[in-house]
Amino acid sequence: MLNHLRGYLPILDWGRTYDRNAFSNDMMAAVIVTIMLIPQSLAYALLAGLPPEAGIYASILPIILYAIFGTSRALAVGPVAVVSLLTASAVGQVAEAGTAGYAVAALTLAFLSGGFLVLLGVLRLGFLANFLSHPVIAGFITASGILIAFSQLKHLLGVSAHGHTLPELLLSIGAHLGETNFITVIIGVTATAFLFWVRKGLKPTLRRYGASPKLADVLTKAGPVAAVAVTTISVWLFGLNENGVKIVGDVPQGLPPLTLPGLSPDLIGQLLMPAILISIIGFVESVSVAQTLAAKKRQRIDPDQELIGLGAANIGAALTGGYPVTGGFARSVVNYDAGAETPAAGAFTAVGLAIAAVALTPLVYFLPTATLAATIVVAVLSLVDFSILKKTWGYSKADFTAVSATILLTLTMGVEVGVASGVAISILLHLYKTSRPHVAEIGLVPGTQHFRNIHRHSVETDPTVLSLRVDESLYFVNARFLEDLVQARVSEGCAIKNVILMFSAVNEVDFSALESLEAINLRLTELGIGLHLSEVKGPVMDRLKSTHFLHALNGRVFLSQYDAWRAMVPPADIDKAAE
Amino acid sequence: MLNHLRGYLPILDWGRTYDRNAFSNDMMAAVIVTIMLIPQSLAYALLAGLPPEAGIYASILPIILYAIFGTSRALAVGPVAVVSLLTASAVGQVAEAGTAGYAVAALTLAFLSGGFLVLLGVLRLGFLANFLSHPVIAGFITASGILIAFSQLKHLLGVSAHGHTLPELLLSIGAHLGETNFITVIIGVTATAFLFWVRKGLKPTLRRYGASPKLADVLTKAGPVAAVAVTTISVWLFGLNENGVKIVGDVPQGLPPLTLPGLSPDLIGQLLMPAILISIIGFVESVSVAQTLAAKKRQRIDPDQELIGLGAANIGAALTGGYPVTGGFARSVVNYDAGAETPAAGAFTAVGLAIAAVALTPLVYFLPTATLAATIVVAVLSLVDFSILKKTWGYSKADFTAVSATILLTLTMGVEVGVASGVAISILLHLYKTSRPHVAEIGLVPGTQHFRNIHRHSVETDPTVLSLRVDESLYFVNARFLEDLVQARVSEGCAIKNVILMFSAVNEVDFSALESLEAINLRLTELGIGLHLSEVKGPVMDRLKSTHFLHALNGRVFLSQYDAWRAMVPPADIDKAAE
Repeated sequence: MLNHLRGYLPILDWGRTYDRNAFSNDMMAAVIVTIMLIPQSLAYALLAGLPPEAGIYASILPIILYAIFGTSRALAVGPVAVVSLLTASAVGQVAEAGTAGYAVAALTLAFLSGGFLVLLGVLRLGFLANFLSHPVIAGFITASGILIAFSQLKHLLGVSAHGHTLPELLLSIGAHLGETNFITVIIGVTATAFLFWVRKGLKPTLRRYGASPKLADVLTKAGPVAAVAVTTISVWLFGLNENGVKIVGDVPQGLPPLTLPGLSPDLIGQLLMPAILISIIGFVESVSVAQTLAAKKRQRIDPDQELIGLGAANIGAALTGGYPVTGGFARSVVNYDAGAETPAAGAFTAVGLAIAAVALTPLVYFLPTATLAATIVVAVLSLVDFSILKKTWGYSKADFTAVSATILLTLTMGVEVGVASGVAISILLHLYKTSRPHVAEIGLVPGTQHFRNIHRHSVETDPTVLSLRVDESLYFVNARFLEDLVQARVSEGCAIKNVILMFSAVNEVDFSALESLEAINLRLTELGIGLHLSEVKGPVMDRLKSTHFLHALNGRVFLSQYDAWRAMVPPADIDKAAE
Repeated sequence: MLNHLRGYLPILDWGRTYDRNAFSNDMMAAVIVTIMLIPQSLAYALLAGLPPEAGIYASILPIILYAIFGTSRALAVGPVAVVSLLTASAVGQVAEAGTAGYAVAALTLAFLSGGFLVLLGVLRLGFLANFLSHPVIAGFITASGILIAFSQLKHLLGVSAHGHTLPELLLSIGAHLGETNFITVIIGVTATAFLFWVRKGLKPTLRRYGASPKLADVLTKAGPVAAVAVTTISVWLFGLNENGVKIVGDVPQGLPPLTLPGLSPDLIGQLLMPAILISIIGFVESVSVAQTLAAKKRQRIDPDQELIGLGAANIGAALTGGYPVTGGFARSVVNYDAGAETPAAGAFTAVGLAIAAVALTPLVYFLPTATLAATIVVAVLSLVDFSILKKTWGYSKADFTAVSATILLTLTMGVEVGVASGVAISILLHLYKTSRPHVAEIGLVPGTQHFRNIHRHSVETDPTVLSLRVDESLYFVNARFLEDLVQARVSEGCAIKNVILMFSAVNEVDFSALESLEAINLRLTELGIGLHLSEVKGPVMDRLKSTHFLHALNGRVFLSQYDAWRAMVPPADIDKAAE
């Protein structure tokens, strides 16, 4: 019973052995992550089109729920860039940004996404995430990074623009370029340059001046906080907000409120598909991060339990004024590097953010949105990586096609169309490849019992025997292909008396393919040619045994291709053939 | 040049050798088919929701165009039941039946469908039809037959009802049951019973009374004409149309008119998907009939050229007042049985129907629609065949699921949803199966060089070597599965020093799977375990050679599993293991 419960509540596992040492390590990690998360949470809420406090709220209860239900020890859950972009795109279709309906729709999206994740977890359907191939994910993340960076351009320029695709964004920004506010541009560009420098150049500089590695690290992480502080104070001192610099303004002070997502059938109907998409993308991002970090410490995560952990986190976000969350790459790596040992580090981070929500929100009144935009731009540009194009080009044109299509469609048609097309194209290309399978004519490798392609290896053959190795499972998509191929091959070689189909690579024969095999058998029988099978696998043979095909088959089924060959070509003939 | 042209114009082939004998055979077949087609064409037009003459028009120019471009010698092209139903369902969504807009939309549907077929043919994409698996087709035809029979019930009862799904039809007929016209019921039931008897009992009766087989055959084919004549005369004599019996009424007299399909972007947008669906279903039906008939005479048809023939026929239908057509099963079999030798038989049929359109249409003024409905019901009930459920249940639950879903969804949600779901479910079930591939642990079959599953065969193994035969291509859907599986197996067996992955059934390794193989290699290297591959196929090896995976691989790639085994387990050890 306890063991069963422990499966669903991993906290019972690590909680029992929690000690003082783990506590101090977790505490240290929590402080660093909290400092990093305050500006990041505000910024991602801005990206999602929500009020800044939503970002903070989305980091409190969700972190705690993940700590209870999740299996990764270092994963940090909260708002992330790509999911924030997806949220803006989905919610933007049902409500106007800035309205109450928009915030409610974001809650609904988190709730549906959480419910879907828990459902997948309970049904153990985590493998569904595999439908997103590695190249499609890489392409999608790169394209999203570009989209996000461009979506922040309006904040850096101080103009009002909108759009969910690159052309829309560029056109909209172009049309409003006249409104550019130069003070905002100065703040935005300076903050961006500063944050790039912090990311690349600060740590070596600090080390050169004798700072300890740990201190250098903490100061680097605090870079965004410094940018926030300096720009906020500048705006306050010089009253820049009266000169058109947009600021964050009033943020409610207090713990996250209890909120209820809108659950009208209409709203659910509109948000269900985006919620499913967000769930799967969030899950894939989260699981890859969690697996990478777990592998480093030889720990294991359970993908199905991860679904439940992330689902609980999203439901938590929906009930406390947040929006869809997932395990983020940057924050998890920071958490891990800072020494987090258990999910308790996450809980301490939540406490830190709760204190910030209660005490610190008045301090960000004068914070310019341009600074937040700079934070986002610097964070997402590290996601942009076109090397996947080169790698897949060299390896597989199908994968290359899927990546390029994902990148192009994400940029030009939006994130939802982009990722959905990526998945659809990957599947269609795979089906296309299997629809025209590779079939090799094979012969015996001399001195062995092994058979290989006659065009690639020097092998023994016999004019009366046609041996074909079918390099694909036989199913409806390619059933007729084999029918046509055998017919064509047989009509070429007049001396052929026996055809052996070597099934070593046939992992399945579905009903359509069974009918095609029956048709092949019938046609060869009429021509007086024997049809034989060899190396039929156990699971396939089990199936065939239940049909009358094996009785109708005019030839035999051999355990190995060599047995089949020996039955048709006696050793004397082999010697002759070899001469 | 002429050869190239002949590829696109099969008429140049058979036209050169056409003689008197072929002419008289073709002529005879044409007479029989014409007699059969007159009532059938009127009836199918009724089913499609179009005026009766549309059925005749759809059989004239299309037949001639198919005779020029098609490759089958016996296929008879024209309106068929399933495509008529699909037309009613598609056009019913954009216009009201009986309006001018409805007829124009039907032309558009034929035009789009024809254009799509020609496009597929020119691009040689006939294999796309393979995505419809045999069981899905069988289920779809059965469900369509039931739907069509129920859609004719209103004509047999003389009530007005509508609907495109079984529940809709039943509810609608139930609500209008009070309007039942009893004279219509008598005509409908008598005609149905008579036609069933003609189909089953007439030929033996005639033969018993000494009729020659040929005469018996012709008289049987003329059964529907007799039913049409008798019921028409009855209505005329007794003025039954004044007692509420619905009749065909005025049918324009003359050759098919020249018509232009509506090509507004809006209409095209609404009809494109249905047109694609109709094209593919029509093509699949047509090709199966043509292939069956060609095989009987050892002729061959060219599926890609068939696309062009059917496409031309549909464009012809769109330009001459028709609606989507395809090669029909019943009419083609009749044509073949009646001795048609070349496509000229089709051209003669077209002439017969043109004469009917010019001269005979006034004769059908008093024809009751109930008689046409009876013709349809008797024709389609022969399509209904549930045996596919039993056959697939015994062979493969996945195929059974696809058939049942196709039947259920076609009946309850309509033809388009039904067939689209059938295709989608087949593909998803296939992907699901490949997502959790069969992986067998293998050992050496004693006295051979052949390796088999240790759980199915008595084989030699060695505790330090783990040999796994992966029974599936490795691609994104199952990439992580292998990673997890190898990790789990290795953590079970502590003595394992080497892992051999036998790739005889791996037909593809895509980019995602390549990354997984790299991850497996990395993890095994850390554990001090060797990773080896065996029996990697040519095409897969070509790919891998272009990557740095083979350099990173800590073990070797062996030509055969036996070579790999011998390299790790010296003969002496084998003897010991065998003891």
